[in-house]
Amino acid sequence: MPHIVILYTPDIEAETDMSALCRTLAQVLPTVTDESGQPVFPIGGTRVLAYPAAHHAVADASGDHAFCWINMRMARGRGAAVHQAAGQALTDAAKAHFAPLLARRPLGLTLQIDEGPEVFDAKFGNLHALFSSKKG
Amino acid sequence: MPHIVILYTPDIEAETDMSALCRTLAQVLPTVTDESGQPVFPIGGTRVLAYPAAHHAVADASGDHAFCWINMRMARGRGAAVHQAAGQALTDAAKAHFAPLLARRPLGLTLQIDEGPEVFDAKFGNLHALFSSKKG
Amino acid sequence: MPHIVILYTPDIEAETDMSALCRTLAQVLPTVTDESGQPVFPIGGTRVLAYPAAHHAVADASGDHAFCWINMRMARGRGAAVHQAAGQALTDAAKAHFAPLLARRPLGLTLQIDEGPEVFDAKFGNLHALFSSKKG
Repeated sequence: MPHIVILYTPDIEAETDMSALCRTLAQVLPTVTDESGQPVFPIGGTRVLAYPAAHHAVADASGDHAFCWINMRMARGRGAAVHQAAGQALTDAAKAHFAPLLARRPLGLTLQIDEGPEVFDAKFGNLHALFSSKKG
Repeated sequence: MPHIVILYTPDIEAETDMSALCRTLAQVLPTVTDESGQPVFPIGGTRVLAYPAAHHAVADASGDHAFCWINMRMARGRGAAVHQAAGQALTDAAKAHFAPLLARRPLGLTLQIDEGPEVFDAKFGNLHALFSSKKG
Repeated sequence: MPHIVILYTPDIEAETDMSALCRTLAQVLPTVTDESGQPVFPIGGTRVLAYPAAHHAVADASGDHAFCWINMRMARGRGAAVHQAAGQALTDAAKAHFAPLLARRPLGLTLQIDEGPEVFDAKFGNLHALFSSKKG
């Protein structure tokens, strides 16, 4: 965690750089700090995945309206101030990314942070160790 | 919101029109009303996105069984009667859409409505304004 | 239910057999038993869908780090022992699948089980009946 999944209508694929959006959001997360000024999200835990839909219908289903849904799932137990700080930082970055598109076409944008309903949670990759060892 | 995500096995791609299903579900939502007869879902807020899987295993993993999962996420705070009305309207529409397929092949179908676990929620597109202004 | 969705970075597509992972996880689920030794998950209810991302950023967004997120959603109301048994069985199977990859490249792995926040839930396919009738 944090895991960001971006679902979007394919009509914006050619109009904006979605790989750049992924990198931008990944780079924003390490700047978010908690009440004591400590980083909330370890760099080794950041994951952003983006998926254009194969089929879609937005608003009146006319086919003219684009949509992008940015959903972040984070570990449970952080306070509201952290949620707000993370959400605001991501929203600011996404607004900047999409500003040119919003100026010229209909586009719905949703950005949410979820605390997930997991009842089992395992992390068994090797990325955290990789980034921890870089600190040493 | 409401955001509908449809995940399905790719074997039904050529057998049914998934774009039509997206449009059908988008057109059903504005017909759902609450206890006082008011529409529950603003047209400008409807989003439906559909994704065929790249890989899958269903039931005994024989490869013969198809599956389609329709999941709608809506804002928290509505009553059970609204959830039931929305779920029934979507299920009726999906059943009608898939009836020919169900008559001739194995197909699992799940339709759920979730109230999401969001701790931060921002909408910063321009679609709602577009549809509100059309009312004026 | 159970519904497993696997989201992953596309760089591992050519390095490991994701269809095989789907089948493996589908075949593990029927082996999970509850406190009384009964199978938890009916074979006719198993669904596994896997999706490579079109765009991604992992950890420091260098492009060198892969990621795979295995998320299972199951019906609410089972006890912690069942969640743990199911999670452990899936994790063991996923670890075995990814062991060769973990030995040679950076790879983040998350496996979670969620009890979903559904307020409406309909199953109207024909797979359960198919597998129930096979028992008779």
